[in-house]
Amino acid sequence: MSSDRILVAQGGGPTAVINQSLVGVALQARRFPGIERVYGARHGVRGIVDEDLCDLGQETTHNLELVAATPSSALGSTRDKPDEAYCREIFKVLKAHAITQFYYIGGNDSSDTVRILSEQARGVGYALRCIHIPKTIDNDLVLNDHTPGYPSAARFVAQAFAGANLDNASLPGVYVAVVMGRHAGFLTAASALARKFPGDGPHLIYLPERAFEMVRFLADVKAVHDRLGRCVIAVSEGVHDAAGKLIASDDGKAVERDAHGNVQLSGSGALAETLCAAIRSRLGIKRVRGDTFGYLQRSFFGCVSEIDQREAREVGEKAVQFAMWGGGEGSVTLRRSGAYGVDYELAPLAAIAGKTRLMDDSFISADATDVTDAFSAYLRPLLGAGMPDAGRLRAPSVAKAAGN
Amino acid sequence: MSSDRILVAQGGGPTAVINQSLVGVALQARRFPGIERVYGARHGVRGIVDEDLCDLGQETTHNLELVAATPSSALGSTRDKPDEAYCREIFKVLKAHAITQFYYIGGNDSSDTVRILSEQARGVGYALRCIHIPKTIDNDLVLNDHTPGYPSAARFVAQAFAGANLDNASLPGVYVAVVMGRHAGFLTAASALARKFPGDGPHLIYLPERAFEMVRFLADVKAVHDRLGRCVIAVSEGVHDAAGKLIASDDGKAVERDAHGNVQLSGSGALAETLCAAIRSRLGIKRVRGDTFGYLQRSFFGCVSEIDQREAREVGEKAVQFAMWGGGEGSVTLRRSGAYGVDYELAPLAAIAGKTRLMDDSFISADATDVTDAFSAYLRPLLGAGMPDAGRLRAPSVAKAAGN
Repeated sequence: MSSDRILVAQGGGPTAVINQSLVGVALQARRFPGIERVYGARHGVRGIVDEDLCDLGQETTHNLELVAATPSSALGSTRDKPDEAYCREIFKVLKAHAITQFYYIGGNDSSDTVRILSEQARGVGYALRCIHIPKTIDNDLVLNDHTPGYPSAARFVAQAFAGANLDNASLPGVYVAVVMGRHAGFLTAASALARKFPGDGPHLIYLPERAFEMVRFLADVKAVHDRLGRCVIAVSEGVHDAAGKLIASDDGKAVERDAHGNVQLSGSGALAETLCAAIRSRLGIKRVRGDTFGYLQRSFFGCVSEIDQREAREVGEKAVQFAMWGGGEGSVTLRRSGAYGVDYELAPLAAIAGKTRLMDDSFISADATDVTDAFSAYLRPLLGAGMPDAGRLRAPSVAKAAGN
Repeated sequence: MSSDRILVAQGGGPTAVINQSLVGVALQARRFPGIERVYGARHGVRGIVDEDLCDLGQETTHNLELVAATPSSALGSTRDKPDEAYCREIFKVLKAHAITQFYYIGGNDSSDTVRILSEQARGVGYALRCIHIPKTIDNDLVLNDHTPGYPSAARFVAQAFAGANLDNASLPGVYVAVVMGRHAGFLTAASALARKFPGDGPHLIYLPERAFEMVRFLADVKAVHDRLGRCVIAVSEGVHDAAGKLIASDDGKAVERDAHGNVQLSGSGALAETLCAAIRSRLGIKRVRGDTFGYLQRSFFGCVSEIDQREAREVGEKAVQFAMWGGGEGSVTLRRSGAYGVDYELAPLAAIAGKTRLMDDSFISADATDVTDAFSAYLRPLLGAGMPDAGRLRAPSVAKAAGN
């Protein structure tokens, strides 16, 4: 019977449930007598190069369950993208510890890292089985119905807009909130699930799948504000004009990029400021407020979908099962089954790696300022139970008596 | 037996539990046969002038309970401050509807509105009983142990920093988050309750009760970053230098003020941007991220302290009891009793109105970058049950074997 030593790590931006997947791997591995070691690398592939490994086999089940319920990457993360030399360093460490399987929990960039490692391992004749475990709040992995991490972030966005809508109804004006999502609008689109009553916001939703025109935007805002006396707007941080230029971009300023070439968008309020300034100056509306949800939407501790928790756990478990029973490499993908269940399959790494899924046209309204019912039907079951339910006074007006 | 017609309204910024107080008034009033009408004014005192009233007596109990559990002001709010002419308009409408009692749920500015109305009513010989019901996420009403609305907002801030700390530990760097609080640091101070393990952030907390010096701030950040390789910082939006100049203020730009003379601070990311830019340029730290919690901290739907819910309900109930049985006017105040219960008293309006409570010196650390244990002991019981509990991997490191 072969003896395996497996290594698991986490890459890219954290999510509320990424540790469910880590714990899924660790606990599932305990069920296989053929797995003699379960190591974790701290801070993703960077931790392999630094030989910063820990022995997850020595964790208690109780503590692993506590970690599973904790947001953000318990092993730490990285945005490093390995090149050939980086891979050689990785293999040196993996060989020294006789690692036979590598599990990487991450989004598109991390899936690309897994693909690179797999190809390089084959190239140097190292028998390493590489498995990508999906997670991303952006929900932009191809071949997946959705990705673990997205439902909880979507729930945060929906709950935030449900509150922001009530706040704006109470003190009317224009409210703009900027939501994460570089290329795909799934997270911004989740704001639509905040609505309950007619007239509820968000009244306008701008997604990066459609070109953003400032003139059109201002006309949209004016129309809603004229009609309702207020306007709540959800905007993706990645909105850009028809030529692809980011609305958030600040000409002349140095742009920060990570190793994968992604422009740093979050952690800056530039887009909200730009849009609010335009509404104030061009529409003459006085009360205009802008928020940028920033890191709260991916790391707030206490807003999670139990569907997401369960699925994030399962992709970790399935990864180990696929590797041990199927003997293959690949990326664990999540398929929807009926209304509502899920199935998991192992897809070839090359079919996932570095590719970006965008919102389907059927999810975006014709006027490009809203989502469709099809999108709401798609997202609703993912948000889980116990979504807050707004009440509204129905008290009839009192007849005027003061003679004004 | 006298017959009363009462009017209730909500003023200032909404909170997560302000409708508990509204419903407390409405349901308590149903227990008094002497109260023949319970009206609500839409959008605070503005709704009285506009004679925009509704009949809360026609609400079902079920719907009122649903509204109570909904954040933000169900009746709508205003920041109007009545002058003499405004009061005359108010009295004209109140008299037309034979209103004998006015209940206003709000913070310092609203308490000042109640005081003005009460004085003006006496001046014109109108027998109107005026009651102020406290709410403010700023927690800055004098004579109160704390104010309804604060515990839930504090809980949001603590949960946000608990997540932000984990996010920052996963992808190290400097993280700055700006928290609401113009003059009082209570809400920013709540970030301290996010900590569980040694080394957890926030590592630095800046309150408006202490002068903010940029040079000192940068030295603080450098010291933490040198020691931990990361730094999580909580900053009040109201921080200012020794001369009282706001750090967030943008010289040369028009400043927006409300009728009470308050400068508009929220809905702008200026302070976070300023601090992040200084850290990047002067300390040379690469990964620096800034968030401004903005309206989420007061309106997020689904983060509430059940202690806060209960107390917000009680101040509404007590207001009616004080007015009906005590026959007095005043502001309902909340006193702490033991560990942990509360009592309510009716204080004179002039003792509360327009006054601002700041954090006691005993709540602020000597180096002015943290809170004390006394503050944590003060806040802990207010946050309620079910605060999230972070887990952390305890897996031992694997001995190095790669010979690097």
